[in-house]
Amino acid sequence: MSECECGDRTLDEAVEAVLESYRGDPRGQRIGRRFLPSRDAVVEIVRLFFEVFYPGYFGRHDLTASNLRYHVGTLLSTLRQKLSHQIEQCLCFEFEGELSTSDAGRCASHATRLAGMLVGRIPEIRHQLIEDIQAAFDGDPAAQSLDEVVLAYPGLLAITVHRVAHEMYAMGIPLMPRIMSEWAHSRSGADIHPGAEIGRHFFIDHATGVVIGETSRIGAGVKLYQGVTLGAISHPRDAEGRVIRNTRRHPTVDDQVTLYANATVLGGTTVIGAGSTVGGSVFITKSIPPGSKVAVKPPELRVVRPGSTPGDDDDLWSNYEI
Amino acid sequence: MSECECGDRTLDEAVEAVLESYRGDPRGQRIGRRFLPSRDAVVEIVRLFFEVFYPGYFGRHDLTASNLRYHVGTLLSTLRQKLSHQIEQCLCFEFEGELSTSDAGRCASHATRLAGMLVGRIPEIRHQLIEDIQAAFDGDPAAQSLDEVVLAYPGLLAITVHRVAHEMYAMGIPLMPRIMSEWAHSRSGADIHPGAEIGRHFFIDHATGVVIGETSRIGAGVKLYQGVTLGAISHPRDAEGRVIRNTRRHPTVDDQVTLYANATVLGGTTVIGAGSTVGGSVFITKSIPPGSKVAVKPPELRVVRPGSTPGDDDDLWSNYEI
Amino acid sequence: MSECECGDRTLDEAVEAVLESYRGDPRGQRIGRRFLPSRDAVVEIVRLFFEVFYPGYFGRHDLTASNLRYHVGTLLSTLRQKLSHQIEQCLCFEFEGELSTSDAGRCASHATRLAGMLVGRIPEIRHQLIEDIQAAFDGDPAAQSLDEVVLAYPGLLAITVHRVAHEMYAMGIPLMPRIMSEWAHSRSGADIHPGAEIGRHFFIDHATGVVIGETSRIGAGVKLYQGVTLGAISHPRDAEGRVIRNTRRHPTVDDQVTLYANATVLGGTTVIGAGSTVGGSVFITKSIPPGSKVAVKPPELRVVRPGSTPGDDDDLWSNYEI
Repeated sequence: MSECECGDRTLDEAVEAVLESYRGDPRGQRIGRRFLPSRDAVVEIVRLFFEVFYPGYFGRHDLTASNLRYHVGTLLSTLRQKLSHQIEQCLCFEFEGELSTSDAGRCASHATRLAGMLVGRIPEIRHQLIEDIQAAFDGDPAAQSLDEVVLAYPGLLAITVHRVAHEMYAMGIPLMPRIMSEWAHSRSGADIHPGAEIGRHFFIDHATGVVIGETSRIGAGVKLYQGVTLGAISHPRDAEGRVIRNTRRHPTVDDQVTLYANATVLGGTTVIGAGSTVGGSVFITKSIPPGSKVAVKPPELRVVRPGSTPGDDDDLWSNYEI
Repeated sequence: MSECECGDRTLDEAVEAVLESYRGDPRGQRIGRRFLPSRDAVVEIVRLFFEVFYPGYFGRHDLTASNLRYHVGTLLSTLRQKLSHQIEQCLCFEFEGELSTSDAGRCASHATRLAGMLVGRIPEIRHQLIEDIQAAFDGDPAAQSLDEVVLAYPGLLAITVHRVAHEMYAMGIPLMPRIMSEWAHSRSGADIHPGAEIGRHFFIDHATGVVIGETSRIGAGVKLYQGVTLGAISHPRDAEGRVIRNTRRHPTVDDQVTLYANATVLGGTTVIGAGSTVGGSVFITKSIPPGSKVAVKPPELRVVRPGSTPGDDDDLWSNYEI
Repeated sequence: MSECECGDRTLDEAVEAVLESYRGDPRGQRIGRRFLPSRDAVVEIVRLFFEVFYPGYFGRHDLTASNLRYHVGTLLSTLRQKLSHQIEQCLCFEFEGELSTSDAGRCASHATRLAGMLVGRIPEIRHQLIEDIQAAFDGDPAAQSLDEVVLAYPGLLAITVHRVAHEMYAMGIPLMPRIMSEWAHSRSGADIHPGAEIGRHFFIDHATGVVIGETSRIGAGVKLYQGVTLGAISHPRDAEGRVIRNTRRHPTVDDQVTLYANATVLGGTTVIGAGSTVGGSVFITKSIPPGSKVAVKPPELRVVRPGSTPGDDDDLWSNYEI
C-alpha cells in the first residue's frame, strides 16, 4: 500500500501511534479488564422494565388472561438474569485489580441477591408509576387519555427510569443507574440524577432541559415544567481545591409545589415550602415559606411601536434585526 | 431454586406479586385488548414519509428517472397499508369494549379512507416542506446548502413530522399524531403539539427546548430560536377542580414574527402582531401590536472586576465560586 | 381497487401527483445523482471513532494485550475505508453535474488523502479527549469515577464528536461534520457547530440546550452548564437583504471561564475575559474584562405569603393557578 493511499502515514504507523496513545495514559480505556458494564445490555434491561410495568403497551401486544402468567414469568426470569449479570459487572468493576477470585465470587452472589430484591420491588415501583400516570393526565389539559400518557409523555419515560435507577442507587450499585438515567435524559431531555428523592404523584410536562441534582428532595404531588433546574449554588472544595463529593448541594421541594417553565432553584439549604407556586423563569437561592406564590416582577420591556424610533441610548435595538 | 438466588422472594412469588399488581388497578396496562397502536410501527411510518418527501436523501440512494415510478408506487402502497392498519388500531382503541364486530369493521373502513386521504395530501404537504427548507436556508448564515438543511437541521425534522401529524390531528385520529410528535421531540428537542396551526415558510433554529402548545396559531414566515415557549398561562378548571380540556390556551403569532432564544409567550388571548420582533428571554403574557420590537430592558448586571470586592449586602456572590 | 379503498384518489393518481411534485421543483430531492452522503454510514463512522478513542468501553469488551494490535488494525482500516467513501460523496456531491470523470477521480483520491490524515490525527484528538474526561470529573462533585464520565456524560459525547467534526470542518469537508454534530445534538442536547474552536480541558455539564455557534472561540479550561448559548446578535445582510455568510458572528470566551446555566453571550465582538465567572441566566452582549464576576442582580420577586392577598394591580397572579 503506497503512502498516498492512507494520507500522511501508513496504516501500520497509524496503528502504532494509537497503541502508543493507549500505553501513555491509563485513562479513557478498559483494556485487559475482566469486568465491564455494557450500555447496550443496560438499555435492554430498561426496555424489559417498560414491558413489565406497562404490559400491552410495550413488547408483546397479544396478552390475554391465559398467556399472561407465562409471559410475566419469562419476562421476570430474563430480567433477573440480565440484571444479575450487569450488576455483577458494576460491582466488580470498581474493585478490579484488588479482587481475588473469591472476592469476584462474592460480587456475583451479591449481584444475584440485589437483582432478586429489585425484581421483588417491581409491584411497589409500578404502584408509584400508576400514580405518576394519573398525575400527568390530571395536570395537562392536552392529555386525551391515560394511554397517551404511557405512549407519548417524555416526563413519564423519565420518571419510570428514575424510579428504578433510584432503587439501584440506594442499593449502592455503581454506574448502572447513571447509564440508565443518561439514556432517559437522551430520550426525554430531563436529566434526573438517580440519587434524587422524588415523592409520589410526580409530573414533568414537556421535560426538555429539566435538571434535578443528586441530593434534591422532592415531596408528593409536585409538578414541574420544561427547563426547571434544581441545582447546586457552588461546589464546596477541600484545602487542595478539589471538589468535595457527597454533601447536600441541591434544594428541597415540599409537597404540592408547582414550578413553572425555566424556574431555577439552587442550593442545599433552600426549601420551597409545601403548596407554593413558583412562576416561570424565577431564580431562587433562598427558602420560600409554605403556601407562597413567587413570580418574577415582570421585567420592564422596551416596546418600540411602528412609526416611533428607539431612543439614542437604546443600543439594545442594534442587537436585533430591525 | 434457593431463596438466595433470587433475593427476598422466589420467582414464583415475584410473578404472583406482579400479576396481583395488574389485577389491582386497570391503569397502566392493555391486557386482553384487541386494538393497540405500536410505537415501532408508527416510527416506521414516519421513516417512510421522510423517504417520500425527500427522495434520494433518505432511503434508496440510487433513484433514477427510470426506476422512480416503481419506487414511489411501492413506497406509497406500503405507506398506505401501514397507515391504514395503525389508524385502525387508534380509532378502535378508544372505543374498545363498546365495539361490536360491525363497529370494528367500520373502524377498519374509516381507517382505510383516512389513510388514502393522507397519502393524497402528500404533494401539498411536501410543497409546504420545500418552503420550510428554503426558510431555514434563508434564515441561517451557517447553512451552506439546502442539502445540509435536509440532512442536518433538527427544526426541519420537527416541522416535517408536525405537518403530517397535524393533518392526522385534524382528521380526528387519536394517539398516533402524539406518538409521532413525541418521537420528533425526542430527536429534535422541539415539542410541537399536533394541534398547533403553523403557517408556511416556518423555521426553528437549533430547536432544543422549543414548546408549542396544542392551541397555538402561527402565521407565515415565522422564525423561532431554541427554547421558545408558546404556552398556557394557567389551566382553567371546572367546579370540581378538574382541568377543562379543548379550550384556547395558547397564543397567536402573526405573520413575519421572529422570536429569539428562550422567549416565552403565554396565554390564549395573547397575540404577537405581524412583523414584530421579540428579543431573547422576553416573557410576554399580553398582546403586542403589529410591527413592534420587544426586548427585555437589559437587567442590571453586577460586575465585580479584579481587585475590587463585592459589597457587604451582595450575598449573591456567595452563590458562585469566586 | 375501488376509490373507496384509497380515499379520494386511486394509488396511480397518488403516485402521479407525487412524481409531479418532484418534477415541479428541484429542491428537497436527489434523484439521478451519483453522489450522496448517507446519514446511517456517518453514524456508523462516529461509532467506530468511539471504539478507537475509548477501547473497552465501547465495542469489543474482551481486549487484552495480545489481541489489541489486531483489533486496532482492523478498526483503523475499516474506519479509513468508510471515511474515505463518505468524504468522497461529500466532496463530489457539491460539484455534482459540473464534474467530469477525471474530476470525480480527483474527489476520490483527495477523499482518500483526507481520510488518512484524519486517522493519523486520532492520537492527538484522543489526547485532548482524555483531558476533557478529567475536566468533567474535576468539575462535577456528582461524578464518582472517570468510567462514569465516559459511559454516561452527555457533555463528553458532544465534545468527542465535536473534536472529530471540527477537524473535518477545518479540512473543508462539507456536510459530513454537520451530520455528525446534529447526531450528537440529538443524543446530548448540545448543539455545537463544527466550526467552533474549543480549547483543551473543556466540560459541559448536563448539556441540554447548549448552543455554540459556528464562529465561537473558546479557550482552555472553560466550563459550561446546561442552556448556555454562544450566539449571534443579528445576521448581517447584503444590499439585497440576503444573509451574509462566513463572517465572525459569535463570541470569544477566554481561558478558565465558567458560564452557569442558561447564560447567554451574543455577538462576534464580545469577549469574556480570562478567569471570569458568568452567573446563571446572565444575558451579555458586551465584552467583560478578565477576572470579572457577572451576575444578574436578583430580579425583584413578588412573594405572596399565605393569608395575604396580591395587590389589585398585581394581575400577574392571575397568570398562575392560585
